[in-house]
Amino acid sequence: MPTARLDIAYVGTRFAGWAAQPGQRTVQGELEEALARIVREPVELTVAGRTDAGVHATGQVASFTHERELPDRLAERLNAVLPNDVAVTAAGAAPDGFDARRDARARSYRYRVLASRIRDPFEEGRALWWRYPLDRAALDECASAIVGNHDFTAFTPTQTEHVLFERTVNEARWSEERSAPDGGEGEPGPLLVFEITAPSFMRNQVRVLVGTMLEVAAGRRTADDFRSLLEGAPRERAGDTAPAHGLYLVRVDY
Amino acid sequence: MPTARLDIAYVGTRFAGWAAQPGQRTVQGELEEALARIVREPVELTVAGRTDAGVHATGQVASFTHERELPDRLAERLNAVLPNDVAVTAAGAAPDGFDARRDARARSYRYRVLASRIRDPFEEGRALWWRYPLDRAALDECASAIVGNHDFTAFTPTQTEHVLFERTVNEARWSEERSAPDGGEGEPGPLLVFEITAPSFMRNQVRVLVGTMLEVAAGRRTADDFRSLLEGAPRERAGDTAPAHGLYLVRVDY
Repeated sequence: MPTARLDIAYVGTRFAGWAAQPGQRTVQGELEEALARIVREPVELTVAGRTDAGVHATGQVASFTHERELPDRLAERLNAVLPNDVAVTAAGAAPDGFDARRDARARSYRYRVLASRIRDPFEEGRALWWRYPLDRAALDECASAIVGNHDFTAFTPTQTEHVLFERTVNEARWSEERSAPDGGEGEPGPLLVFEITAPSFMRNQVRVLVGTMLEVAAGRRTADDFRSLLEGAPRERAGDTAPAHGLYLVRVDY
Repeated sequence: MPTARLDIAYVGTRFAGWAAQPGQRTVQGELEEALARIVREPVELTVAGRTDAGVHATGQVASFTHERELPDRLAERLNAVLPNDVAVTAAGAAPDGFDARRDARARSYRYRVLASRIRDPFEEGRALWWRYPLDRAALDECASAIVGNHDFTAFTPTQTEHVLFERTVNEARWSEERSAPDGGEGEPGPLLVFEITAPSFMRNQVRVLVGTMLEVAAGRRTADDFRSLLEGAPRERAGDTAPAHGLYLVRVDY
């Protein structure tokens, strides 16, 4: 059957996550409704990353099979009927049998942290506001420790559908999306960004990693302690789950 | 009387502008309410730029006189009680008699335009979405023409409280906040930014300038026509008022 691919961006704030659920406003639900109107047949989306409520995406990918021919300018037509907080950034034919979930070789997520004593209203709902000092070197040390093959049991909820807890992380690093101003008052502090790439992730994995790294960077636990968590420690030894609103699915590699 | 200065940032979307109005949610109203709680006396704010409904600010400045001593960490205390879409980025004592409006030597505004066939949900309410081709050289030519002393009658509403329509513009230029991707699909186009600095502005001046420049850049009028508008042409000869949600007050110089 002919197969299509959608590239999708959304502000997660007002969605109950990706996956369609009865009575909830979801990204999948909005997209499938728009597709039914534009492609004029019911379609079911397969997605690369099933994001949770409040999580954003700039580079989500979904696929679907269809019987009717796709209309021209599909992305523009979909955007004309989609709500303002979700957009299809590209749409078109994919190789027959393309499956956005199964064929993905890697996913990349970003977690944004506004490290500032002063709130930034433009980052409300878009970055975690962290108003206490952070040890940047400690963040870098933790990120390095994450790369490679580890048992991430400590970084996903105890009640889980996952069976295997080993995962390989290709890349993990902190950078500055926006630098701290030159000691001046009146400007927000630096915007730190954690970016991580792996073939697959467990539920909440990035958020618990970030929550725990922030505890190290705040001096509340050591980098050695963090490293020891990567060897299959139980969930209760890791830190809090960082809030959903700092997390972005930014890229899927095929 | 002791005088204080506040530096303020706000997302204008949910405000009926700066100026307090009965029954409306305004930036001045929210700030004066927060100040009354924290400084524990009624204060009246004088502001550098009275922004309209929907206009944003990253570098607004206001001043007020007070009788009680200012509490420590005033900015943080105010932010703790202010709503999430407004923040005080700095607060403290100013020279006696400081007046945020009268003493301002120049104001700088930015107008952000997402020039892209594809919507960007993260710029919803924060940039004008312009989905048609724009001639960047024409924008630059118009911006150059704006610098200097002109009669801006064409760029402010006919019904006006202004008496003098001559204004001097110190600087005006277009730049790219974010470049276009390398011809790839699936990413939003360039984010163009117009920045203008002048000692003072008339009502809607930046928005009508931008609305008219966009008509030139879209090929609907010539740069020569634009230049002729700067010599006191009537309002109806200029273009549409660009929407409020692309406009930011970014800096006030003293």
